[in-house]
Amino acid sequence: MQPTKIDLLINSRWIIPVVPEGAVFENCAVAIDRQRIVGIYPQAEARNKFAADSVVDLADHILMPGLVNAHGHAAMSLLRGYADDLPLKPWLEEHIWPVESRVLSEQFVADGTDLAIAEMIATGTTCFADMYFFADRIAERVHRSGMRSQVGFTVFDFPTAGGKDPDDYIHKGLQLRDSYKGNDLIKIACAPHAPYTVGDETMRRIATYANELDMAVHIHCHETAQEVSDSLKIYSCRPLQRLDDLGVLLPQTQLVHMTQIVEDDIRLIQDHNCHVVHCPESNLKLASGFCPVGQLMDAGINVALGTDGAASNNDLDLFGELKTAALLAKAVANNAATLDAHAALRMATINGARALGWQDEIGSLEAGKSADMIAVEISSPSQKPLYNPASQLVYGNAGSQVTHSWVAGKALLKERALVTLNEQNLIRRADQWRNQISPE
Amino acid sequence: MQPTKIDLLINSRWIIPVVPEGAVFENCAVAIDRQRIVGIYPQAEARNKFAADSVVDLADHILMPGLVNAHGHAAMSLLRGYADDLPLKPWLEEHIWPVESRVLSEQFVADGTDLAIAEMIATGTTCFADMYFFADRIAERVHRSGMRSQVGFTVFDFPTAGGKDPDDYIHKGLQLRDSYKGNDLIKIACAPHAPYTVGDETMRRIATYANELDMAVHIHCHETAQEVSDSLKIYSCRPLQRLDDLGVLLPQTQLVHMTQIVEDDIRLIQDHNCHVVHCPESNLKLASGFCPVGQLMDAGINVALGTDGAASNNDLDLFGELKTAALLAKAVANNAATLDAHAALRMATINGARALGWQDEIGSLEAGKSADMIAVEISSPSQKPLYNPASQLVYGNAGSQVTHSWVAGKALLKERALVTLNEQNLIRRADQWRNQISPE
Repeated sequence: MQPTKIDLLINSRWIIPVVPEGAVFENCAVAIDRQRIVGIYPQAEARNKFAADSVVDLADHILMPGLVNAHGHAAMSLLRGYADDLPLKPWLEEHIWPVESRVLSEQFVADGTDLAIAEMIATGTTCFADMYFFADRIAERVHRSGMRSQVGFTVFDFPTAGGKDPDDYIHKGLQLRDSYKGNDLIKIACAPHAPYTVGDETMRRIATYANELDMAVHIHCHETAQEVSDSLKIYSCRPLQRLDDLGVLLPQTQLVHMTQIVEDDIRLIQDHNCHVVHCPESNLKLASGFCPVGQLMDAGINVALGTDGAASNNDLDLFGELKTAALLAKAVANNAATLDAHAALRMATINGARALGWQDEIGSLEAGKSADMIAVEISSPSQKPLYNPASQLVYGNAGSQVTHSWVAGKALLKERALVTLNEQNLIRRADQWRNQISPE
Repeated sequence: MQPTKIDLLINSRWIIPVVPEGAVFENCAVAIDRQRIVGIYPQAEARNKFAADSVVDLADHILMPGLVNAHGHAAMSLLRGYADDLPLKPWLEEHIWPVESRVLSEQFVADGTDLAIAEMIATGTTCFADMYFFADRIAERVHRSGMRSQVGFTVFDFPTAGGKDPDDYIHKGLQLRDSYKGNDLIKIACAPHAPYTVGDETMRRIATYANELDMAVHIHCHETAQEVSDSLKIYSCRPLQRLDDLGVLLPQTQLVHMTQIVEDDIRLIQDHNCHVVHCPESNLKLASGFCPVGQLMDAGINVALGTDGAASNNDLDLFGELKTAALLAKAVANNAATLDAHAALRMATINGARALGWQDEIGSLEAGKSADMIAVEISSPSQKPLYNPASQLVYGNAGSQVTHSWVAGKALLKERALVTLNEQNLIRRADQWRNQISPE
């Protein structure tokens, strides 16, 4: 029989496809053609079956789906470490917002987004959900980089560098959405900043558009206890209840943070099939609270994972976030079996894909899905001995060992080198912003 | 004036000496002679003042004291990821202790300790406190590697591979202590395993020896709620109170874990000037609880940092542990200003030195102290822009960016390459143990 021509064959020592759950394949190969996964085969079978234009041999690696970073503000990488060890309110009001009002520009967003994308690619993320200002520039930088992204246009009730008023934010956002129709790698979502910065009328309009256009809603929600108590004072209900009353809780709604949870909140999330995006490092660093991940997952709620922006983390390494999430979930649930290694990997892959409505495209290595994949090298003394590849990915320092990355079959990282971005140029621009923002 | 001859001059872009608190020096140099720090000088001044046998230029680096990992079981690196996602009791009783009883040997300890030392050197640790079996082999491997260590001889009330009974453990331990007298880099401590594995009579004997010989006591204590409730049932008091009654709470006592704390515990620790060793990742992973680090530090208690063994972590990267500690302390204290970046660096350096009774030798870059130092490179996009070097060390991924390490002026890591250990040999031995412990 003639071998089938394909674009790419990747032989890997281990493969964790995420679906089926818990599977670890040894000495297998993934066949890729026209940007999609053809299937996973034993290496000997794959050699006979396929004639690949290109073959990659990963002798000491784990191949797996690319990570999905389900919440962040990429451009804030330019504010990494700018104001640390402060609570959310003074951090935002006395440091982050003032510096943003001073330096925020389209160029800031372009340079910061590039810097963040470089870090995310290098540490295993192939898809990220973003919300920040100048969403058109974010989308443009994503497109140039070859990454996959849900770009959220942020909506406030007040003017910012990104817009005059709710009308302006929404109008520009919907225009952007039109211009990316048909782009397989970029989706535009509506990102009302938070319940406390967006009023009832704007929320209702967002609900209408989200419903009509089947557009995702990405929103900070129940980030701190103060947010909840303020809402109780002003609206006589919890923020989540208010979002429900205003029609914003939809199956495509992504609730970011959710550190403050009572039984009624869980019921609302269940009833509307919303998604929760857990950002443990940001929640810890800003002392916002603990999201009860085990409890949410037991209730059948889809929980994805995000780094938040580098100004409150301070890195965009989703493997590091995953370790924090897996460790913290156990202590918060008082159960060391909570969020085991494979469940944690699902949180950072297929759950993220599901939250972004991309579960048929990415999040697992299955035939027909887009070839969004990464390879992690397991060869250093700190990764030995290897009893359990999933454990090594979750509880080790996998982010620093990512060697390859592909999105829709296109290489973005080869042997630890960025393919679509110029590292020296990124560093030079970051140093320039540093000198402008905080002159010595 | 003639320049003074010295052994080594290190020019570094940034220097964080830890003492004085919060200091960050730019474009300075550390002069080292006969294993000790002569002083820190502006680079131009140092060039004129000294004629160094060897000069190291660190153009994009932060130079700082080597990290002190104040609790671990180095040889357990061979069980990294062997049994994950399990609570402490079944993890120990059904997995760790059975496999140890099957494979534990002097060779296991030697190979595992070497593997752990390699990982610790590569990630910035220059001094570690260990407790495990065959303490003589641990000390021998430490000595060969050039690292600094407090080696604890473990004491149980029951027989193990390491000894027949308390007499046997203590006798061998004190002999080992004699044989390392006069060794500047290795101290021998007594390590009663835990309140629940060591009886009253043995504890009293340990207290006597520790007092007479001014020997450190290193003990797991208040690791879990069950340990405390069991003690209340059996002894009608909390474990810490029992240790006090038995005379074990001394200024040289190192209490490891302390996740269960009430006001009386704090008073006891204060009264006796004991040290607490915080192991956040192990405590989270085994769902043991949260050590209230901020509360302890506010009470003036010295809190050091440890990774615990790689079987419950699963890495020995103390910078990663430091990030977890700094993030977690804020959320536990409900205060984002708790354990700021400089305080966190102190926890991993001078506080560890103090806990091990080595505060006059190490833990800061001060004239007269031993030259135990590390360099961290700050040049990747994920470390840019750099506003605050201390933040970058604590909240970034500094462990993967360590390039140089010295102990008593002797290089253990040069440009990321191990000097005293053969990496390929370590990996080969780890793979052999893997195949023996868990044959495929």
